[in-house]
Amino acid sequence: MAGSIFGTIFKISTWGESHGKGIGVVIDGCPAGLALDEADIQMYLDRRRPGQNKYTTARAESDSVEILSGIFEGKTTGTPISLLVRNQDQRSRDYGSISELYRPGHADYTFDQKYGFRDYRGGGRSSGRETIGRVAAGAVAMKLLAELGITVTAYVSAIGPVTIDRSHVDFSYIEKSKVRMPDSEATEKALAYLDACIQSQDSSGGTIECIAQNVPAGLGTPVFEKLDAVLAQALMSIGAVKAVEIGDGTTVSALHGSENNDAYTLNEQNRPVKASNHSGGILGGISDGSPLLLRASFKPTPSIAQPQSMLGRDGTIHRECIHGRHDPIIVSRAVVVVEAMTALVLADHLLLNMASRIENIKKIYRPSPCNSQTVISE
Amino acid sequence: MAGSIFGTIFKISTWGESHGKGIGVVIDGCPAGLALDEADIQMYLDRRRPGQNKYTTARAESDSVEILSGIFEGKTTGTPISLLVRNQDQRSRDYGSISELYRPGHADYTFDQKYGFRDYRGGGRSSGRETIGRVAAGAVAMKLLAELGITVTAYVSAIGPVTIDRSHVDFSYIEKSKVRMPDSEATEKALAYLDACIQSQDSSGGTIECIAQNVPAGLGTPVFEKLDAVLAQALMSIGAVKAVEIGDGTTVSALHGSENNDAYTLNEQNRPVKASNHSGGILGGISDGSPLLLRASFKPTPSIAQPQSMLGRDGTIHRECIHGRHDPIIVSRAVVVVEAMTALVLADHLLLNMASRIENIKKIYRPSPCNSQTVISE
Amino acid sequence: MAGSIFGTIFKISTWGESHGKGIGVVIDGCPAGLALDEADIQMYLDRRRPGQNKYTTARAESDSVEILSGIFEGKTTGTPISLLVRNQDQRSRDYGSISELYRPGHADYTFDQKYGFRDYRGGGRSSGRETIGRVAAGAVAMKLLAELGITVTAYVSAIGPVTIDRSHVDFSYIEKSKVRMPDSEATEKALAYLDACIQSQDSSGGTIECIAQNVPAGLGTPVFEKLDAVLAQALMSIGAVKAVEIGDGTTVSALHGSENNDAYTLNEQNRPVKASNHSGGILGGISDGSPLLLRASFKPTPSIAQPQSMLGRDGTIHRECIHGRHDPIIVSRAVVVVEAMTALVLADHLLLNMASRIENIKKIYRPSPCNSQTVISE
Amino acid sequence: MAGSIFGTIFKISTWGESHGKGIGVVIDGCPAGLALDEADIQMYLDRRRPGQNKYTTARAESDSVEILSGIFEGKTTGTPISLLVRNQDQRSRDYGSISELYRPGHADYTFDQKYGFRDYRGGGRSSGRETIGRVAAGAVAMKLLAELGITVTAYVSAIGPVTIDRSHVDFSYIEKSKVRMPDSEATEKALAYLDACIQSQDSSGGTIECIAQNVPAGLGTPVFEKLDAVLAQALMSIGAVKAVEIGDGTTVSALHGSENNDAYTLNEQNRPVKASNHSGGILGGISDGSPLLLRASFKPTPSIAQPQSMLGRDGTIHRECIHGRHDPIIVSRAVVVVEAMTALVLADHLLLNMASRIENIKKIYRPSPCNSQTVISE
Repeated sequence: MAGSIFGTIFKISTWGESHGKGIGVVIDGCPAGLALDEADIQMYLDRRRPGQNKYTTARAESDSVEILSGIFEGKTTGTPISLLVRNQDQRSRDYGSISELYRPGHADYTFDQKYGFRDYRGGGRSSGRETIGRVAAGAVAMKLLAELGITVTAYVSAIGPVTIDRSHVDFSYIEKSKVRMPDSEATEKALAYLDACIQSQDSSGGTIECIAQNVPAGLGTPVFEKLDAVLAQALMSIGAVKAVEIGDGTTVSALHGSENNDAYTLNEQNRPVKASNHSGGILGGISDGSPLLLRASFKPTPSIAQPQSMLGRDGTIHRECIHGRHDPIIVSRAVVVVEAMTALVLADHLLLNMASRIENIKKIYRPSPCNSQTVISE
Repeated sequence: MAGSIFGTIFKISTWGESHGKGIGVVIDGCPAGLALDEADIQMYLDRRRPGQNKYTTARAESDSVEILSGIFEGKTTGTPISLLVRNQDQRSRDYGSISELYRPGHADYTFDQKYGFRDYRGGGRSSGRETIGRVAAGAVAMKLLAELGITVTAYVSAIGPVTIDRSHVDFSYIEKSKVRMPDSEATEKALAYLDACIQSQDSSGGTIECIAQNVPAGLGTPVFEKLDAVLAQALMSIGAVKAVEIGDGTTVSALHGSENNDAYTLNEQNRPVKASNHSGGILGGISDGSPLLLRASFKPTPSIAQPQSMLGRDGTIHRECIHGRHDPIIVSRAVVVVEAMTALVLADHLLLNMASRIENIKKIYRPSPCNSQTVISE
Repeated sequence: MAGSIFGTIFKISTWGESHGKGIGVVIDGCPAGLALDEADIQMYLDRRRPGQNKYTTARAESDSVEILSGIFEGKTTGTPISLLVRNQDQRSRDYGSISELYRPGHADYTFDQKYGFRDYRGGGRSSGRETIGRVAAGAVAMKLLAELGITVTAYVSAIGPVTIDRSHVDFSYIEKSKVRMPDSEATEKALAYLDACIQSQDSSGGTIECIAQNVPAGLGTPVFEKLDAVLAQALMSIGAVKAVEIGDGTTVSALHGSENNDAYTLNEQNRPVKASNHSGGILGGISDGSPLLLRASFKPTPSIAQPQSMLGRDGTIHRECIHGRHDPIIVSRAVVVVEAMTALVLADHLLLNMASRIENIKKIYRPSPCNSQTVISE
Repeated sequence: MAGSIFGTIFKISTWGESHGKGIGVVIDGCPAGLALDEADIQMYLDRRRPGQNKYTTARAESDSVEILSGIFEGKTTGTPISLLVRNQDQRSRDYGSISELYRPGHADYTFDQKYGFRDYRGGGRSSGRETIGRVAAGAVAMKLLAELGITVTAYVSAIGPVTIDRSHVDFSYIEKSKVRMPDSEATEKALAYLDACIQSQDSSGGTIECIAQNVPAGLGTPVFEKLDAVLAQALMSIGAVKAVEIGDGTTVSALHGSENNDAYTLNEQNRPVKASNHSGGILGGISDGSPLLLRASFKPTPSIAQPQSMLGRDGTIHRECIHGRHDPIIVSRAVVVVEAMTALVLADHLLLNMASRIENIKKIYRPSPCNSQTVISE
């Protein structure tokens, strides 16, 4: 398998390259009866779109989605939903010069090693444009989750050395912030930092956090398909992510059990709650009903304008600059990709978990009392 | 799916509970012709075994593996390899008292939420004993990797606040260290720290690092099945892991592109190399031929002897101690589990990648020149 | 993948060879809460067991099953169920002589071509004993289906030229018949025919039919995973099956639409029914609530006592007899295998189909009204 | 999963409805380096296209394929290949009248049972147009097989009572025959028979046979993924197929082992061959190097112009005619679909089988002699 298919029941198959005819995704396994139109999807694609401000690539793309199948009279039919976004501003002339060079930090060398050659125009399949398929499918997953009141919200928590102040977090500010931080002061600092990066022909890494609320307890399974394990795959599969953390993440290794365990207690309504959420909403690979807390660390964009040492296909070293249009920071645009991947995992596990108990089966099927030869069931 | 199956071609199916009859794994998809006997597997199980010293649980288990199928005349036949380890020292009497209680940091509550009830004896399927299946299968994967000179080595890099000194790392010391650190000084400090933990009826988290060498370039695929993404799932699926990092991991978010990019250069033999390995051996989800660098953060063992606030099945809160035999630290025993999961991913992707190019296919099959009606191919 | 894993949610992984230590299966994905003990499984294994009469191999095996995991207090826990049957009467000395010969109609040649060598003792993995894993897992599937009143019944409809008389079918006779025909007269004729086969050192083919009743409408999906398509794979995967038919099967190609269409009508209770069931209970790949009708054609046992032309590994031709203990007919013992494979497909699709509609999801999960920070769901 | 994904390594995901915007397929896992352009695919789509003569539906569709991704400089890149065929002549006005009726022999009733409602225009996803995705993907598989000299040829062997005369088979006549029979006399008889069907407002069933030549020995696996089992799923998943046979098919049940076994012998070049091919090229689920022989029985088109008893959604019975444009026979157009499904299975198993032996792995990867810290492999 070429690895562009994800999920077990809610299964997506993405395709497309940066400078090909377009990008798309087929969703196989979305339940029937979900209200869905192009606006539901476009809303998310618009958040991912390039050209939002000077901190994102200037490539001009409307990224308009077309639903090609799977919807009838405004609802999903249960059959595959095919989504298409045509590429418009491809400018592949920018890339000819690097067809014989392997750029540092890019997949150029590894694609050639794997496939023998590569579509070198704009990163081909390893371009950030690949995430359009994820975001489009994620929008459908998000619509499905909304049926149960589940929400997924991501935001930028750090850009370079600038981190948000957790005592001033304001989720309503995320979409107002040019860098999608839930904190106006940190936003200002981050913009200043990015201006300096651009000035010095450099780029910056960053961190995205994601919180999913109202997730029912019981999602995920005890061994390889732990909910956190599948989320880790989902987030690490986003280009540039180098670390994935759940709950307290890397800090747990320095803690005592007495500090890290989330004690059970009763809340003001006398209902049982966890007094803390170090575990990030997952215990033993299964959701516990408290908010899911995820974090992903993104490396700095490898495309920088300053000269770098590149490797030629012939084994020689070249000091060259990368031309083309690139983001000095990608976390701001990747926020919606993190949401999408999280939503895709949750939607799939929501469906998978339905079959976990015999009593659930009996809620769906009515046992037949008799041997009803050719009688059609209702 | 209940999530106890892992891999695409080299596929494993694990089973078994802490206090059931045993633990095992079926490997479906191991190539034929690999020399394999029980000693190859026992060697790894022995490193995982409890009772190694006072820092691991006192449960007495020989963990002897029996190969039930798939081997003939000392070689794998290409058919499923079934491996069985019988449980011996089960002492399930220890656990009756907590059958109605949900322990903090454990999967008790989530199992009940998912399945309606649970095997409460020793954690059931979410016990650390579940990893026996992983380690046994991983040993077979390791044997396969060895055919190509690929090695996988993990070690403890931190226990609580004690971290190894990277200027004194000695891999040959790993198995000599009681806590599997490649550093004798850090080992001493860690043991002192653990003694204090035991004293205070507490436990400690820790960190494991893993390096895989001689991995061919080209493993992994560009989108969802990125090599790092699958490794992230593999490591995060180990109980207690809360973060997975590749290469420079979480630190990348604070870096510039000019710092994080691995420049290409020539080595002393005039062969092209990366001047650094911030990427941890993976670019665009595909191995680049340099060493794979992985890191996993483990939370402290949730079973601690001091009293904790637990939740009753009836919604009441109880202050209780957890009895039974538990490890104050699990990273030392988990080192071999990290190696096993890494080896399983590499073996699977080694096999998957064979089909990546048309020219590879022609190395395996000889094109037929004619329409050879009923002639049998040789 | 080596192809010993079957199913999507209700997933089984079988292992074992004819002359290895045993045969087994791991079931991953059985819902929690199903009452299950060894007797539930043994009942089916006993129907498959050799040595039932002179028409089956004389190999003496008790085929006693041991449940190794996945059951607690008499119920499935939702975790993998591992089932083991130890081999007893292996007599591998019988087979040494054919280690260098490829027997006609057997998999000897193809195993060597695929894997480079083979476990030649009694067919190894391609032995009929492989079906023990299928039958054991099928028994669990059957128990699950019984929760909804679904029944699966197979029987022999033809042995060589002897076919059952459809006007005298008596299902209660199946287990009384030495050849599992639901017709005493046909049984007598078939036994006479088989006596003649044995006399002439020959074997006979046969046909098995299977009917599944009370199957809910809606199982299966419209394209590649049509219920009939998956059943076709399931039945064709049984060794010796050369044809699979659904409903009217091969006869449909000679019919008109007006003859083959099942008209809708009302029954005596004024409920809508199909006036006929040519389609065998499946339309467009999805069950329609009427009985599923399946048929599988089995080739004659290739092991016959008379001399045959065999191929040596060295390319020479040898005229030899096959020694060992073999069934002159396998359909009688394969009846329970057909039931098992049918039950496995139905159980899996019963679980898969739960996720087909949004309204089903709402029967399982209660939408959350609020953002319940750390409140644990009940 | 909604079941529109097929294959393990060479994996396809099809989508689209009869009266939606189009039909398409994404191929994930085609090896890199295969020369491919739209003409390679169009060639097969043209053979499937409607409107070829009066025996096929009059719907006017050019069925022009567009390659949206996965090709660069005329070769496959190893990334997903997305293929799109826009629908043109949709005329959905024909179908409004039957939105509330379930037609006999169609999937109307079962779709409503499964999904709660359906896209009733022209069969929606269960339309014959769904096979466009299969044929387009099959064309790519065919191109891959051609690299090894493997050919796949299907033809009509029976229409209603008219069967080909096996002593006069002429494969070069298939595409000349209006019904794709390899026999001019049978073609004439079949056309006369179909004229009579049209006259009586009826339709006819038929049979397709398929032969694959130069298939290497070793494809397929011993248990559930037997080559014949996967082919059975593949063919049975084509709408209207009610039986799949391998080699001698249903006739084997009446035979003796001495008749059915294919004896080994030497051919004129003194090379070992099978003296016959009753097994149809597969033994124990694995190809033996002789031609693969497959047969599929198609039911008569359920859409007939004469009045039939239909079921209303409200449970009432209606005697109505089906309007719209339908084929009186579908086997002629389905020939290329059978070829496509066969090619898809063979391509996938060709790739899967590469990993069957350790020695194959060593043909692809060069073992590393040393621990090459950051040296890049070539």
